[in-house]
Amino acid sequence: MSEYTITVVKNENPKPKPASDQLKFGKYFTDHMFIYDYSEAKGWHNPRIVPYQPIVLDPAAMIFHYGQTVFEGLKAYRTKEGHIQLFRPDKNMERLNLSNDRLCIPAIDEEFAINAVKHLVHVDSEWVPDAEGTSLYIRPFIIATEPYLGVNPSSMYQFIVILSPVGAYYESGINPVKIAVENEYVRAVKGGTGEAKTAGNYASSLKAQEIVSKEGYAQVLWLDGLEKKYIEEVGSMNVFFKIKGEIITPELNGSILNGVTRNSVIELLRHWDLPVTERRITMEELDEAYRNGELEEAFGSGTAAVISPIGELAWGDKKLIITEGQTGEVSKRLYDTLTGIQFGSVEDPFGWTVKVK
Amino acid sequence: MSEYTITVVKNENPKPKPASDQLKFGKYFTDHMFIYDYSEAKGWHNPRIVPYQPIVLDPAAMIFHYGQTVFEGLKAYRTKEGHIQLFRPDKNMERLNLSNDRLCIPAIDEEFAINAVKHLVHVDSEWVPDAEGTSLYIRPFIIATEPYLGVNPSSMYQFIVILSPVGAYYESGINPVKIAVENEYVRAVKGGTGEAKTAGNYASSLKAQEIVSKEGYAQVLWLDGLEKKYIEEVGSMNVFFKIKGEIITPELNGSILNGVTRNSVIELLRHWDLPVTERRITMEELDEAYRNGELEEAFGSGTAAVISPIGELAWGDKKLIITEGQTGEVSKRLYDTLTGIQFGSVEDPFGWTVKVK
Ligand SMILES: Cc1ncc(COP(=O)(O)O)c(C=O)c1O
Ligand SMILES: Cc1ncc(COP(=O)(O)O)c(C=O)c1O
Repeated sequence: MSEYTITVVKNENPKPKPASDQLKFGKYFTDHMFIYDYSEAKGWHNPRIVPYQPIVLDPAAMIFHYGQTVFEGLKAYRTKEGHIQLFRPDKNMERLNLSNDRLCIPAIDEEFAINAVKHLVHVDSEWVPDAEGTSLYIRPFIIATEPYLGVNPSSMYQFIVILSPVGAYYESGINPVKIAVENEYVRAVKGGTGEAKTAGNYASSLKAQEIVSKEGYAQVLWLDGLEKKYIEEVGSMNVFFKIKGEIITPELNGSILNGVTRNSVIELLRHWDLPVTERRITMEELDEAYRNGELEEAFGSGTAAVISPIGELAWGDKKLIITEGQTGEVSKRLYDTLTGIQFGSVEDPFGWTVKVK
Repeated sequence: MSEYTITVVKNENPKPKPASDQLKFGKYFTDHMFIYDYSEAKGWHNPRIVPYQPIVLDPAAMIFHYGQTVFEGLKAYRTKEGHIQLFRPDKNMERLNLSNDRLCIPAIDEEFAINAVKHLVHVDSEWVPDAEGTSLYIRPFIIATEPYLGVNPSSMYQFIVILSPVGAYYESGINPVKIAVENEYVRAVKGGTGEAKTAGNYASSLKAQEIVSKEGYAQVLWLDGLEKKYIEEVGSMNVFFKIKGEIITPELNGSILNGVTRNSVIELLRHWDLPVTERRITMEELDEAYRNGELEEAFGSGTAAVISPIGELAWGDKKLIITEGQTGEVSKRLYDTLTGIQFGSVEDPFGWTVKVK
C-alpha cells in the first residue's frame, strides 16, 4: 500500500555522538526523526523519515493553546551480540490510541506505527549505545497543528517520533529513592485525563514535584483526587508494595496510567507463582503494615528506571523507612529479570522483545 | 530601562483584511506579533514586535511533551469616535501570573505586559474592526521551549501575543444557548489546575464537549470533580443563576477560573444594588428552584460572548427551560451595560477601560 511507504531523506551532516558514559536522560537527540501528517481530507498521510529538524508552526496552532496532544515512551536496547530490540512496542501503540481517544485525536494504525519506529531506529542504529545499562529512548508524540483559537478538536495533526540515547538511570545500578506522599496537589481524578498519556497531566504535576525536590525527595506519590486516601502512582512510575508476602499494586481506576512495566511486573510475578493483587490500597493500610513490621518492600515501575526501590516514604510528619532503605529481594529479582529480557541476556518466554531488522 | 524598549520590525507585506461581516472567532490573524524570551541567565529579555510568523522549535521543546504553558484572552474595542480601548487588561495580566505560579513559569512584569499589548494593538490598529459588535481578540500565551525530555520546569520560555479580529459572538445580538450538565467527565478538581488558564484544562474538556455538541448543545456545564454535585462553570464561561431575585454564582474554590467578566458582573450588580451571592450551589437546589418556578434566569459570562443567556439546561433526563427560552431582564441589562462600557457608548464609572494611545 503506497501510503505505507515511508520515504527517507538521509541527514548529510550527522552530529558527533556523545560518549556512552556522558549520556543523560533526554538531552541528546539523534540525526533523524519520523513525521506523519493528518488532515481531514487525507487522513494520516506522507510518512517520512527526515533529518532531525525544528518543528515550524503557526503561532495559533492549537497545541500552543489547548494542549491537544499525546505521547509515548519506550526504548531500544542493544544486546551483547550487537542486535537491537524493542520491548513490547505493541503495548505503547495500543496505549497511544487509548490516549488519542480521550483527547479526540484520530487513531493511528498501531502496526504501521511500530514499523515506523523500527524503521527510524534502524536508520539511526549507530545511535543505540552499547555501554552497560544504556539504551535509546523513543518518544512518539502527536500534536494538534491547526491554526485556530476555538476550543474544538483540531482538523490537523502531526505524529512525530524522536530518539534520544540515554544513560543507565542509576549510575551505580539499582538504588533506592526517597518519595514524598502528596497531600495538597492533585495529578488526576476519575473522569479526567489521568489514564491518558497527555501533556496536561505532567504540567499539573510540576508544582508538587518542585516543592518536594527542594526537600530532598526524588518524586511524589499521588493519592486519589477525591478522598486523598488511596494510593495512585509515583511521578512517572506505577507503584507496588509487598506486605506479608503479598505484592499489591493500585488497580487501574481511570486516573492511573496503565504502565507497560507495571503489566510486565504483574505477568512476571504470576509466572513465578508469587501472589500479586491489583486492588485499592490506602496510605493508612500501608502505614499500619509498616508499624506492624509487615511492609517488606516498595518499588516504582516505569520505562525510564524499570524498577525503582523506595527506601523512604514521607507522609506528613511520618517517615516510613522500607527494607531498611535497601533494595528488596523481589525488587532486585524483577529488575534483573526485566533488564535481562530487555538486553537479551535472559530468555524471554513471553515474546516481549521485538528485533529491529 | 533598556530592557523595556520594545523593538519593532514592520511587516512589509501586510495581508488583506477580511470584511467586517466575514469575521469568525480565532480564524484570522493580524500582520504583527509580540515576542519576549526568557532564559535563566537573562530573565525575560528581547521584547520585540515582528511580522506575524511561524514559531520554530526543537521537536524536544517541552511545550510539545509536558504542556507547561499558560494563556490569556482579552479584547480591544473600537469606539464610535474611532478610538481603541482595552477592557481591564490588568486583571488578565494578574491572572496570567497566577497561572504562571501554578505552572512553575517565571512571573512577568504585569505593567510591562500591558504596555506590550497596547503597543502591539497600536501597530496593528487598522485591524481593529468597526462593525457593530466586532472587536480584536488578544491572545497572550507563554510556552516552555527548552529541548529536554525530563519532567521538570523548563529553563527557557517565550511569551507571545497574537491578535485576531473577531465577529459579534451572536450574529443576531444576544441569544439564549442550550447547555448540557456533564455527569461523567471532569474538567478540574481542587488541588489541580482548574484555577489556572492552562492548555491541559481545555484538552481534557474536548471529549465531553464533542459528545454534547452532537446532541445539539452549545457547551457543557461542569460539576465539581469530587461529588459531581456542585455547579462549577460552563465551557469557557462562568455561570450565574437568578433565583427568587437573588443572583448566585459559584464561589471561587480553586477549580473554577476567576473570570474577568464574572468579576465585572458582580461589581455591576452591587453597583445597581441587586443582591448577588458567591456561594456553593448544587444541581439539586437549582432543579428544586426550577420546579418551584423560582429559577428566573441563568447566564454564562466570558470575554468571547460577554453574557450568554442559558435558555435550556439538560441534566440527565431532565430539561430545564429557563426564562421560557428567552433572554432574561438582568442578562440583557448586564449585556447592554458591559458591551456599552467596552465600546465606549456607556459611561465607565469603574475605570475599567484603558485607551490605546
Ligand atoms: C504517570 C506515569 N505513570 C506510570 C508510568 C510508567 O509507565 P511505563 O511502564 O509504560 O513506562 C509513566 C511513564 O512512563 C508515567 O508517565
Ligand atoms: C474555563 C473558563 N471559565 C471562564 C472563562 C471566562 O473568563 P473571562 O471572563 O476572563 O473571559 C473562561 C475564558 O475566557 C474560561 O476559559
